[in-house]
Amino acid sequence: MIAKAKVVNLALDKAVPLQHPVKIREAMRYSLLAGGKRVRPALCLAACELVGGDEETAMPAACAVEMIHTMSLIHDDLPCMDNDDLRRGQPTNHKVYGEDTAVLAGDALLSFSFEHIARETKGVPTDRVLRVICFLGKAVGSEGLVAGQIVDIASEGDSSVGLETLEYVHIHKTAALLEASVVIGAIIGGANEEEIDRLGRYARYVGLLFQVVDDILDVTKSSAELGKTAGKDLLADKATYPKLLGLERSKEFAQNLTVKAKEQLSIFDQLKAAPLLGLADYIANRQN
Amino acid sequence: MIAKAKVVNLALDKAVPLQHPVKIREAMRYSLLAGGKRVRPALCLAACELVGGDEETAMPAACAVEMIHTMSLIHDDLPCMDNDDLRRGQPTNHKVYGEDTAVLAGDALLSFSFEHIARETKGVPTDRVLRVICFLGKAVGSEGLVAGQIVDIASEGDSSVGLETLEYVHIHKTAALLEASVVIGAIIGGANEEEIDRLGRYARYVGLLFQVVDDILDVTKSSAELGKTAGKDLLADKATYPKLLGLERSKEFAQNLTVKAKEQLSIFDQLKAAPLLGLADYIANRQN
Repeated sequence: MIAKAKVVNLALDKAVPLQHPVKIREAMRYSLLAGGKRVRPALCLAACELVGGDEETAMPAACAVEMIHTMSLIHDDLPCMDNDDLRRGQPTNHKVYGEDTAVLAGDALLSFSFEHIARETKGVPTDRVLRVICFLGKAVGSEGLVAGQIVDIASEGDSSVGLETLEYVHIHKTAALLEASVVIGAIIGGANEEEIDRLGRYARYVGLLFQVVDDILDVTKSSAELGKTAGKDLLADKATYPKLLGLERSKEFAQNLTVKAKEQLSIFDQLKAAPLLGLADYIANRQN
Repeated sequence: MIAKAKVVNLALDKAVPLQHPVKIREAMRYSLLAGGKRVRPALCLAACELVGGDEETAMPAACAVEMIHTMSLIHDDLPCMDNDDLRRGQPTNHKVYGEDTAVLAGDALLSFSFEHIARETKGVPTDRVLRVICFLGKAVGSEGLVAGQIVDIASEGDSSVGLETLEYVHIHKTAALLEASVVIGAIIGGANEEEIDRLGRYARYVGLLFQVVDDILDVTKSSAELGKTAGKDLLADKATYPKLLGLERSKEFAQNLTVKAKEQLSIFDQLKAAPLLGLADYIANRQN
């Protein structure tokens, strides 16, 4: 799966060339091209194609969601946030370039993501492109990713955190951007409102699934297997699904979410929906 | 001057209402509504009106440039950057809300600025709105504001920094966003290419002027008069115009830039250009 990773990597490499001032570009490229799984771009491209759009037209948006995801990782890893030294098996951005550059690299990736969509999306009605920018902005800011992160930080070390807060955090911190990836791909591809609605719900289930699996991997895998510090949630006494539900019920919950995610795609030709159906399985079964 | 500050403040207040999660919204509003001079929104609105546009249509963009300016102040003040405790006479964002929230408040303001333009700009052709988003993105990211900041950080404590680097920093760190403010107002107002070009050059001169005056004020005013720590550049052994040119020649340079800025507006009806002509004078003569 994630057959699209290679073509996405090429597009990302081209989108952020090395140019003056070199240091900021190096910092941006270091994290952007560090070999992520490219789940979000894959979702974006697949959704565009599923609704009958030309995959090519969604590539700038697909790159943009990966830039935003990278920004969020760089900023989350900062000492004043999660203070993480390791990411995807490599030293985190601020460990290599310093905290000041890491903050700025994130800022630059964030603003560039919107610019890139506005400039490079071709052959798509401009009102669709504006709708994409709206949707993406909402998924990132204080109604999306940032909201999830702020509630996550506030709940750290709070042993009273329950399933409701945990779900709020994941829906905002993880699912919002996954949902945006799918929905903006669909908007670019010319989806109707029902298709957008179904795909949005598919992505929210997948997003929650992604996080439940993450929680499970954190307690069942080693740092070497994950390419990032394992057992961190436990150490930080963080609310996780295994902690609140137990490991077995967490696995059942994950399976349940996978089924629900796939059900949302029943309105589509199942052959054409295969990449998104496969992505749900891929996320359910990933080992790191 | 800055007669528009009141109406801009109202629009900003309305754009970022207090809602869940409250802490991030409070942090965003704390810095956004801290009583800045609103130079950038004023430039944006004035440019729109000067080229025959309806000022109202540029209000979302005017708010967006102020959000971006605020984001840059919040992130610049962080301990890992300029480590400043005081801004506009008040404790800086991270002093009140903590570093983690300050980083996130900046991120949220940045992404929201693009979303706000895309969602709220009404009665303007959508291709113009996309052009605005492109221009603004470029002004903020690694070809604009971030580029200026990264070169600024790199030059700190480097006594060999000359006028060329100093100008690079100011053109990117300060002038780029002022230029964007003017140019996007003009684009929204329906300016032709010559008008955009002239207004862009006007703003670059004004931007450089803004920084030369800032450098002069830093060595001639007290912290109480400025509402921020005075003498900081001197203390940090930072390259400034007074340091490189001396105080008198810096003042002459500022006067020169004011004249050049105003010259760019000669193609416009001078009565209609009065707000932008006045803004150049205001920036040249400001005392804090």
